[in-house]
Amino acid sequence: MWKKEFFDSLENLGVPSHMLKRSSIGFKEIWKPIMELFQQRKIPEHGWNDFQIRQLLDILSHLDSDKDPRSIRIGEREGRISSVILNEISGGFCHGIGRSGELTAAQPKAAGASLMQNLTNIIVLSLIKSLGLPNIKTALTIPFGTGMSIGMAMRGALNYHKIDIHEKPMVLMTQIDHKSPRKGIEYIGGILKIIPGRYGKNYYSNEGVFTNIEEIKEIYHLNSNKISAIISSTCFFAPRVPDNIKEIAKFAKKNEIIHIINNAYGLQTPALLKLIRQSIDAGRIDAIVQSTDKNFLTPVGGAVITSPNTDLIKEISKSYAGRASASPVVQLLVSLLSMGKQGYLSRIEFQKENRTFLEDSLLELANEFNEQIIECNNPVSCAMSLKNIKPEKIQDLGGILYNLRVTGPRIINIHKDPFGSCTTEMKWPYVVMNAAIGVEKKHIFEAVDRLKRAIKQVK
Amino acid sequence: MWKKEFFDSLENLGVPSHMLKRSSIGFKEIWKPIMELFQQRKIPEHGWNDFQIRQLLDILSHLDSDKDPRSIRIGEREGRISSVILNEISGGFCHGIGRSGELTAAQPKAAGASLMQNLTNIIVLSLIKSLGLPNIKTALTIPFGTGMSIGMAMRGALNYHKIDIHEKPMVLMTQIDHKSPRKGIEYIGGILKIIPGRYGKNYYSNEGVFTNIEEIKEIYHLNSNKISAIISSTCFFAPRVPDNIKEIAKFAKKNEIIHIINNAYGLQTPALLKLIRQSIDAGRIDAIVQSTDKNFLTPVGGAVITSPNTDLIKEISKSYAGRASASPVVQLLVSLLSMGKQGYLSRIEFQKENRTFLEDSLLELANEFNEQIIECNNPVSCAMSLKNIKPEKIQDLGGILYNLRVTGPRIINIHKDPFGSCTTEMKWPYVVMNAAIGVEKKHIFEAVDRLKRAIKQVK
Amino acid sequence: MWKKEFFDSLENLGVPSHMLKRSSIGFKEIWKPIMELFQQRKIPEHGWNDFQIRQLLDILSHLDSDKDPRSIRIGEREGRISSVILNEISGGFCHGIGRSGELTAAQPKAAGASLMQNLTNIIVLSLIKSLGLPNIKTALTIPFGTGMSIGMAMRGALNYHKIDIHEKPMVLMTQIDHKSPRKGIEYIGGILKIIPGRYGKNYYSNEGVFTNIEEIKEIYHLNSNKISAIISSTCFFAPRVPDNIKEIAKFAKKNEIIHIINNAYGLQTPALLKLIRQSIDAGRIDAIVQSTDKNFLTPVGGAVITSPNTDLIKEISKSYAGRASASPVVQLLVSLLSMGKQGYLSRIEFQKENRTFLEDSLLELANEFNEQIIECNNPVSCAMSLKNIKPEKIQDLGGILYNLRVTGPRIINIHKDPFGSCTTEMKWPYVVMNAAIGVEKKHIFEAVDRLKRAIKQVK
Amino acid sequence: MWKKEFFDSLENLGVPSHMLKRSSIGFKEIWKPIMELFQQRKIPEHGWNDFQIRQLLDILSHLDSDKDPRSIRIGEREGRISSVILNEISGGFCHGIGRSGELTAAQPKAAGASLMQNLTNIIVLSLIKSLGLPNIKTALTIPFGTGMSIGMAMRGALNYHKIDIHEKPMVLMTQIDHKSPRKGIEYIGGILKIIPGRYGKNYYSNEGVFTNIEEIKEIYHLNSNKISAIISSTCFFAPRVPDNIKEIAKFAKKNEIIHIINNAYGLQTPALLKLIRQSIDAGRIDAIVQSTDKNFLTPVGGAVITSPNTDLIKEISKSYAGRASASPVVQLLVSLLSMGKQGYLSRIEFQKENRTFLEDSLLELANEFNEQIIECNNPVSCAMSLKNIKPEKIQDLGGILYNLRVTGPRIINIHKDPFGSCTTEMKWPYVVMNAAIGVEKKHIFEAVDRLKRAIKQVK
Repeated sequence: MWKKEFFDSLENLGVPSHMLKRSSIGFKEIWKPIMELFQQRKIPEHGWNDFQIRQLLDILSHLDSDKDPRSIRIGEREGRISSVILNEISGGFCHGIGRSGELTAAQPKAAGASLMQNLTNIIVLSLIKSLGLPNIKTALTIPFGTGMSIGMAMRGALNYHKIDIHEKPMVLMTQIDHKSPRKGIEYIGGILKIIPGRYGKNYYSNEGVFTNIEEIKEIYHLNSNKISAIISSTCFFAPRVPDNIKEIAKFAKKNEIIHIINNAYGLQTPALLKLIRQSIDAGRIDAIVQSTDKNFLTPVGGAVITSPNTDLIKEISKSYAGRASASPVVQLLVSLLSMGKQGYLSRIEFQKENRTFLEDSLLELANEFNEQIIECNNPVSCAMSLKNIKPEKIQDLGGILYNLRVTGPRIINIHKDPFGSCTTEMKWPYVVMNAAIGVEKKHIFEAVDRLKRAIKQVK
Repeated sequence: MWKKEFFDSLENLGVPSHMLKRSSIGFKEIWKPIMELFQQRKIPEHGWNDFQIRQLLDILSHLDSDKDPRSIRIGEREGRISSVILNEISGGFCHGIGRSGELTAAQPKAAGASLMQNLTNIIVLSLIKSLGLPNIKTALTIPFGTGMSIGMAMRGALNYHKIDIHEKPMVLMTQIDHKSPRKGIEYIGGILKIIPGRYGKNYYSNEGVFTNIEEIKEIYHLNSNKISAIISSTCFFAPRVPDNIKEIAKFAKKNEIIHIINNAYGLQTPALLKLIRQSIDAGRIDAIVQSTDKNFLTPVGGAVITSPNTDLIKEISKSYAGRASASPVVQLLVSLLSMGKQGYLSRIEFQKENRTFLEDSLLELANEFNEQIIECNNPVSCAMSLKNIKPEKIQDLGGILYNLRVTGPRIINIHKDPFGSCTTEMKWPYVVMNAAIGVEKKHIFEAVDRLKRAIKQVK
Repeated sequence: MWKKEFFDSLENLGVPSHMLKRSSIGFKEIWKPIMELFQQRKIPEHGWNDFQIRQLLDILSHLDSDKDPRSIRIGEREGRISSVILNEISGGFCHGIGRSGELTAAQPKAAGASLMQNLTNIIVLSLIKSLGLPNIKTALTIPFGTGMSIGMAMRGALNYHKIDIHEKPMVLMTQIDHKSPRKGIEYIGGILKIIPGRYGKNYYSNEGVFTNIEEIKEIYHLNSNKISAIISSTCFFAPRVPDNIKEIAKFAKKNEIIHIINNAYGLQTPALLKLIRQSIDAGRIDAIVQSTDKNFLTPVGGAVITSPNTDLIKEISKSYAGRASASPVVQLLVSLLSMGKQGYLSRIEFQKENRTFLEDSLLELANEFNEQIIECNNPVSCAMSLKNIKPEKIQDLGGILYNLRVTGPRIINIHKDPFGSCTTEMKWPYVVMNAAIGVEKKHIFEAVDRLKRAIKQVK
Repeated sequence: MWKKEFFDSLENLGVPSHMLKRSSIGFKEIWKPIMELFQQRKIPEHGWNDFQIRQLLDILSHLDSDKDPRSIRIGEREGRISSVILNEISGGFCHGIGRSGELTAAQPKAAGASLMQNLTNIIVLSLIKSLGLPNIKTALTIPFGTGMSIGMAMRGALNYHKIDIHEKPMVLMTQIDHKSPRKGIEYIGGILKIIPGRYGKNYYSNEGVFTNIEEIKEIYHLNSNKISAIISSTCFFAPRVPDNIKEIAKFAKKNEIIHIINNAYGLQTPALLKLIRQSIDAGRIDAIVQSTDKNFLTPVGGAVITSPNTDLIKEISKSYAGRASASPVVQLLVSLLSMGKQGYLSRIEFQKENRTFLEDSLLELANEFNEQIIECNNPVSCAMSLKNIKPEKIQDLGGILYNLRVTGPRIINIHKDPFGSCTTEMKWPYVVMNAAIGVEKKHIFEAVDRLKRAIKQVK
């Protein structure tokens, strides 16, 4: 990366040549991964240190025109900022990303941000492929969360298939009790039809909440000729299980409707990726949407849309109206580089262990209180029944845990409101806990312990 | 802000009491503006220094749960990050903003980010009001640019007025040759009808490109009963002039259609704010959209939607599907605090002077080359004809300027494509330059000088 | 630390009271250790996080006058700086420490730096006492390394005892082959008499290089009435063993001469501290000098002088001519806070394990090459003979290791120059390696492995 | 600085070649000054921006072995640190500067710090030469203040001339009432003889406190054969005037004694530099000592020793016992780069204007209170008599100013203690104020105004 001329210029500054030579070896090694990244264009095997990450950001951001000391900037929008703090908290990318034409178009004033964005998309694609999705062709990092991104994927897919010209699109969605994906579709002007969740034994687990492919077909045919798309889901809190996406993909293919998968935090789960890979091969999947913070430990606010169809991703990118904040993109880049491939794989390993530890811990608790663990095999969360707590006391549990400074457990009191269970068929209330990627084992230990104290309080 | 107990604890550490007392006076003054901000809730009169801004960000971000050293975080989304760099480039706000329910809802895991967001909205509102819009009631900072924000404002307004239940909304838009606002409307599933721009003497200036209220009425009536909304515009490059928004507001009121103003970089221009204020009083304005970077010198990626109707803003906020990146919001907060009210007013003053200087400089150039300045009175930009350059040479001008490292000038070669002129009625090509807020005088000087060299080259 | 008024001011900013209450609990806990530090004035039990350390530095440095936004600074020296970078790389302390009168005097313009310095001295004292030196009364952090600090301690002790009025002081020093301590004494105008090292069985170990109390007495009496002081040493590379400081202390007491201990990196070794504690009780010790970087993992450039005599430390402080850079002091403070007492103790534990691992690894190597480990029981380093390498090849070993990117091993080729062995009595060359505090086990493993490769190369 | 290979590696990452080409032009210009610095080795004409300065520090510090990702560090001192904050507040230079042998020796573990130190010395030399001292040959940046540095210069000069072998050196010093320089000499074991200051008309000004060359000669001869050195002074508060260093230099040459000039803050004053230049040519000057913070706007704690004799500087460097903190050196480097030559010259210009403004303001005040300005022509400070304030009230003035938050004015109440006036011949008390480099004009204005209020209070 550094010219020989540079090392030569250090000679005769009081440091003997053999020392300079020795130093330059270590020096070059620090910058080597940066050069390799540009050349190899895939996630580095091992995580970078902070200095290397900052150097990359500095290099890229100093290719933007607002850093050029001699450029004359006379436009109405030139990356001018009122305080150096703004440069720092934007990672140096004051011009944002994209152009009015397209989110991923090269911005003439911001070559560096454009490179940064493309690098990020290439790197995250290389990681996702290696995790078990070789049949994915493109990845697009989106500057908003899963819900909005599902909407954006749908907007792009509708545009791509030129479906959305004359009337409002009608969209099937399997029931998950989360407002964001629903609102994401409504945001772009879609009309939703929800496929209700059912409780019982299913294609995936001995018990759990699932959706039924027959019911999907039924609802589809009731609205015949009007349904443009279906959204399936791999990720939700236990006892919800992943949708049977292979069957849905076949169904979508057969009926020629758009199929988008809400894979919010599914990249951390190899089993889900296997399912997706098979579904791509077996049927139709237009786009898969995943959160950056839930999968890749970034601050909230980004998503990655992947697809086996590069042109469709291009159309999604084109649907975005103007430039966007570079922050969610640069945050993903930083996180990926800091972990490296091996760092990510070891976190996945660790998540699996934590998930087992969580179930074991909750099982012990369940035995003590004569409750049960719902055997739904959810890869991230675990649900325990709350049959033996008086209905009027269940609501208190949440407040008690909050006061014990535990965040994250969800108490679903079906007596009051079944929302959250994704069905109307649950027979008793329950509590859900997560062992998502990045959680510390001691937090699981402590959370279960405090849950125990909380239950004792309401008994 | 600091307890007496704190100052007492410094006693007997080798520093005499009278020195401590003296020091504590200066010390308290550093934190005073922070306390005042929380209490007075308006833009500070004078800009803060970097330390004070960072302290505020630190205070706020340390009210989020991911900073609590003893909290147990067991959810699937807990603001966990893989690298400290991520904390820094997000301003400390790893949880983002909003909830699945609403963009401005208080997030239980992120009290600090919620406060930060509300503070920002209140502060920017206080500034906008004081600039000449006292009849604005609410401001909402949006984590994307003007085009997407126009879409979001439209989505919220349609929801608010329950217009969008059964069919695709049809939206009038006065012609500005900028893709983003158009795509913003298409994004949310709207159908556009463009009111074409006309060239000539108009309600605003001796010459320029404008839209005609009569033509609006005409097109409206041609599509009777189907038009839901109109989007007018105050800001575009010369020779486009601001729309006659007062008449449009009256028209919208009379016909009960939504009226959204694209005020992209209009906050820097008191005359436009006066126009908007009068329009609010005279007719109907649902929402006004402005860019944060173009008005407030932030990095690209944010917008502020204001409205005289607080409930409508609430509905816009509710239309957003899930949490969002906090970055565009915290960037606006930082910028406002670093400038303060007086700092912003002085930049407005300076912009006006620069605009005059730009026109004077271009006029001189025009005289030299026998060209003319279009007298359209655009508050930010200035257009000079390129009548006397051979049509086939005009295209080269842009490339030459690019090589001379000038960004920003727009060459509109109507011989090739009238796009950019907002009309089909221009008779000759022209070049536009800007003197937007934040530009340096020497850049204007240099840009005009290089334009001169470029023109000489193609003559 | 924070007024109730502050928390009250957050009310009605869109975040419900119960969330604010919960947040404020975590918030207060972040600042609690800072308040406790001021109140309890000892090293915290557990290390602080980076944010807490920075907050403390910010609090302290903003008590200096150069941060007071309304002070009028008209002196010739007012902590003015030309760049914000300077503020950052000085930890915020632009006024340095001390006054012309005394290094630890409160500086009226820099109450914060004065507090910082006093806190550091108190904290490091509390740690050193708890490590096994309860009979130490004062600690003084000095802005230069061990050699200069030995000189400064001597200067202060001479001043304190008013010995240095009319003639140059003559100083005994037990042989350690390190230039810095010798130069430290010469710097202040002292004349050195070196007590030569001897090789063999000694008061401390089966074999090793030591100094002989009888020889000290002999040399003292040869120079009778002219010797003012003696410098003993606890720390040097194997096979040098610690001096018999208990006997030296008794000797110094009996003969009324100053006794300063060079304890360069001895704070990491409890056994040495026990020795020092006993020596203080049994005889005379004026001052003990230790490096901050070698003991406390700071950047190079500081030392801590401790003494059972507070007045003597005061005199040392007074001997410094003017203000000094605050950097070495603030660096020590940061390091101590980041480790906490428990963090430091665990590093000591780890060092001991590494030292054992180093000897085991070298022993294996020695067996392979028919060499021997010198059984001198040095607490940090370990020496292996190089009997079976041809004398003319030994010099090459160093160069080979350097090229293998190993720093730290010392090759003492007594055939060429006995300097480094602290004696003229060694019979064969040897190599020394260290397992000092902070080293990583894998570095020991790698270093021994590369040494093996290097030896093979020269065989 | 950057290989073509690097720019090539950016191709085909979604950004067109012509944009990359354009960007690379600006990019290269950012790094150009760094390369030029290494090649030209003199102070840059124009100040660098913060990014460039940080890049240089990063480049240099990453040539140190503690940054090499693959080095094996097994020594007892390897630049290991306990917290990343330490790296930041040391500018990245954890190894300090120097070796046990010499302060400026290249440290094998720290090639970067060694380069940094040499660069700093070369750059500051280039600046000092260009300010008016072409006959200076070497500059050495010292990690402590003026007083200690005068001692160090003396120690080195004594070693160089081999004067200090057998007896304590006796040193003449012209009276300045500042403890540090005196203690600096005592620190290295010197015995001082003070040449008393006299008041009246002198070689430099109409009135003022000066020293008399005849008196120097007299005191020298009284101590004949025992005086080794003389320390003269160019800088002290009015009414002290610079010593007649040309005559002293001639005297030192004739009598073959060391001559060191205390030029504490004299680099900002071209007239003083002219005086020094002439003195070097006319007589003997061994070393000249100046403060980094008082001349170059760094944090307190560094000095620069210059000399026409390179070998002597080398000996000074050798007298330092071991490695030192790199902080004062890196701070000087940062400050010089941030100002550049032109930035420094303009600050000198500004200082001169401020000095005039200070005298004019004080003269007005003097007229109002019937006091007088002492016409001593001091280039930095200005003294006004306090004849008409009751002796018992004068002491109060200081306290009042302190409470008015003014730092810097010195009240010399000769009725109580003549210390500070450098003589016993002053007839009345006075107040001194400074207009040193870096002061803001409004501070002078405010300080004089507050002094006026203070005087009124005690009248």
